[in-house]
Amino acid sequence: MERKLNSQRPRVVIVGGGFAGLKAARELSRAPVDVLLVDRTNHHVFQPLLYQVAAAALSPRDIARPLRDVLRRQRNASVLMAEVVGFDVDQQRVLLSDGDALAYDFLIVAVGARHSYFGNDNWESHAPGLKTIADALELRSRILLEFERAERNATRAALSDQSGPPEASLTFVVVGAGPTGVEMAGAIAEIAHRTMRRNFRLIRPEMTRTLLVEAADRVLPPFPEELSVKAQRQLEDLGVEVRCSTRVVEMSDNSVRLVATDATSTEDEKVAASCIIWAAGNEVSSILADLPADRDRSGRVTVAPDLSLPAAPNVFVLGDAAACAGADGKPLPGLAPVATQQGSAAADNIRRDLKGRSRKAFSYWDRGSMATIGKARAVAWMGSLRFGGLLAWLAWSLIHILFLIGFRTRVVVMLEWLYLYLFNRRDARLLHSLREPHPTPDCDSET
Amino acid sequence: MERKLNSQRPRVVIVGGGFAGLKAARELSRAPVDVLLVDRTNHHVFQPLLYQVAAAALSPRDIARPLRDVLRRQRNASVLMAEVVGFDVDQQRVLLSDGDALAYDFLIVAVGARHSYFGNDNWESHAPGLKTIADALELRSRILLEFERAERNATRAALSDQSGPPEASLTFVVVGAGPTGVEMAGAIAEIAHRTMRRNFRLIRPEMTRTLLVEAADRVLPPFPEELSVKAQRQLEDLGVEVRCSTRVVEMSDNSVRLVATDATSTEDEKVAASCIIWAAGNEVSSILADLPADRDRSGRVTVAPDLSLPAAPNVFVLGDAAACAGADGKPLPGLAPVATQQGSAAADNIRRDLKGRSRKAFSYWDRGSMATIGKARAVAWMGSLRFGGLLAWLAWSLIHILFLIGFRTRVVVMLEWLYLYLFNRRDARLLHSLREPHPTPDCDSET
Repeated sequence: MERKLNSQRPRVVIVGGGFAGLKAARELSRAPVDVLLVDRTNHHVFQPLLYQVAAAALSPRDIARPLRDVLRRQRNASVLMAEVVGFDVDQQRVLLSDGDALAYDFLIVAVGARHSYFGNDNWESHAPGLKTIADALELRSRILLEFERAERNATRAALSDQSGPPEASLTFVVVGAGPTGVEMAGAIAEIAHRTMRRNFRLIRPEMTRTLLVEAADRVLPPFPEELSVKAQRQLEDLGVEVRCSTRVVEMSDNSVRLVATDATSTEDEKVAASCIIWAAGNEVSSILADLPADRDRSGRVTVAPDLSLPAAPNVFVLGDAAACAGADGKPLPGLAPVATQQGSAAADNIRRDLKGRSRKAFSYWDRGSMATIGKARAVAWMGSLRFGGLLAWLAWSLIHILFLIGFRTRVVVMLEWLYLYLFNRRDARLLHSLREPHPTPDCDSET
Repeated sequence: MERKLNSQRPRVVIVGGGFAGLKAARELSRAPVDVLLVDRTNHHVFQPLLYQVAAAALSPRDIARPLRDVLRRQRNASVLMAEVVGFDVDQQRVLLSDGDALAYDFLIVAVGARHSYFGNDNWESHAPGLKTIADALELRSRILLEFERAERNATRAALSDQSGPPEASLTFVVVGAGPTGVEMAGAIAEIAHRTMRRNFRLIRPEMTRTLLVEAADRVLPPFPEELSVKAQRQLEDLGVEVRCSTRVVEMSDNSVRLVATDATSTEDEKVAASCIIWAAGNEVSSILADLPADRDRSGRVTVAPDLSLPAAPNVFVLGDAAACAGADGKPLPGLAPVATQQGSAAADNIRRDLKGRSRKAFSYWDRGSMATIGKARAVAWMGSLRFGGLLAWLAWSLIHILFLIGFRTRVVVMLEWLYLYLFNRRDARLLHSLREPHPTPDCDSET
């Protein structure tokens, strides 16, 4: 009675259509199981380029694909757009917001993470984060509206012969200098100093300030120190003011209060901010509380080497939701490659169970990582190889262009549309309304 | 003192960046004037394809362009994203929501129209219309969520061995069978019967009903009767239930009550509707009330043959906001070609004023019109030439493909993005948040 949908085969329920969950679903395509992928949204997002959507350089459809479309040809997979509110591990059930329960034989939990406001949840309205398409469109809207507002002020001033608007009229504050924060700050500085110059008549780049605030003593803390130095220099070249060892202690819609984190400094400044962007800290979904397992201090579930729960071996936790030790014993970072490789590993272990073979421990193959700062500006490292500037940027561009082309190969958008239309496929079938389909902000399986 | 921004030259303020306003702005590029284009949004929308965005076949950026981008190279033009709340014709000022006033020498009012709920304004929440990108994304979201909901019900039924969901689980009701309503109903029927079949595992096309309700006695009332017949047959081939001579008298989130309009019939039916789409009736913005002019019963401003107001010759009203008699004495329909041609005519008359030459009366060159119903299904007429089916559809496709290619010529989206990025241009810079930039629903200059 556990096995409906497609009768006698074991059912694998995967919660979350991000890198980990989607990879696991695809790797099970030839396994003798029924795969049910549950996500709160209807699409998979290529998160590393989400900031480009916020910066209005890419459209949602460039980096997002409907899950049903991705799994269209996978006969043993179904997609369910639903909100998971908890787990009943004893009864082997996933609990949905509409009161339903999904029975599983194997459960893969890959619900990702949401940005953490370190207890100041009211900050979210002042400083939205960047995890979903909806987040990105909200940020894009705020950023562009700020430029429009500044132009309106400048026009008003011009019409009434006053002097221009005050300097502070356009201050963007990015909180958190991890890859997302660095990329976001760089993109905003570029918009301000280059793009907008051509499109606006009155506002001037000099009117724009971009602050990047980081509590640690350097940008890109997870990166090698020399690259942090390179990255900061490149950010400053772009006109970004970098404030390391600085923490945000207060926030309103139009201001942030910054204090120094190291005791030696007495810095304590209130900065007028027209737009605040949150790129600091992650926290996991509260639904993980139902899982019988230990947690690290950021709430991530501690998993066994085979990525399952010691207390429930048929339950796997992957990606940002999992605390999984790397070769060096330190927990693996919340990166797409980690999630993807874990997705394959979990699928492999399920196949091994079904064949009665023993499971394999997961080991992460680190191909290195990179962060782009702006045009011809980036930092990258692969093992001992570390480089910045144009070379790193070209490497970054190449990798992402290859991805995007693979993601949506096409000639003229219009011909594509005609093709889709003639052959009855709908593309860009994304529900990226800012009004989230399901109100409860609990289940963060969009990523 | 009337002429700031660029000193001594006359200032033309254009309210609304739709077909009429944008055309007028461009036609004034070489005139000795300063053009100030004011719109509530930051983009121009190619409305005839808006239903394709709602049907998730096109993305907003395919049919919308930032106004600043369109006018980037036009030295004498500036764009102001602001909400117009009224006009002071005596003082020659446009009043903005932020309390500002824009002085003008010439005023062009092209604020378009908003859908009218015939006094039942509470219906808007149940049955959104289709005038703006935000409308289209809202509709897309509602339509796709209905399919997801139906699949969720079907899955629930399958999991618990019940029979499938009830027939009525997916009923789309489109109110109004003008071109938009016909195209929307056709698109939904196609999604239901073709696209979704590939992507959903459990819901079946038979579960979907698409009702098209029209108060008049035939679909496409403005079209020649023989084409209405053709159109209705083609809609029915697609599975659309056409209900002519029928009016909506009650509405809730999930039902509509339909009654016959002709006394002979006693039809009075309450239909369960999972999604209602409003494509009936237009009404003009209330800000037109400030203009000294007569109005027709739908509130449109009666204009002189030169498109200006008899009581204020330096004020022109164009497009959907204007009641302008055609050659046959009947008011011209609210179509893109009418608006575009009026935009040129108004610009021409302003140039004539500046040269001291007499104005020319506007005359509309009707190239005919067309409506598409689905793949290989459409109706078209040009003068005495009337045709339907594949030929009409090919004509429609050709015209719109040419437009879209002209609108955004490009090869692979990724290469374009790289280009835009390298050369510091941002594309798709659209504020299509569902949360409208300005809350007041008064000023409808998005179109």
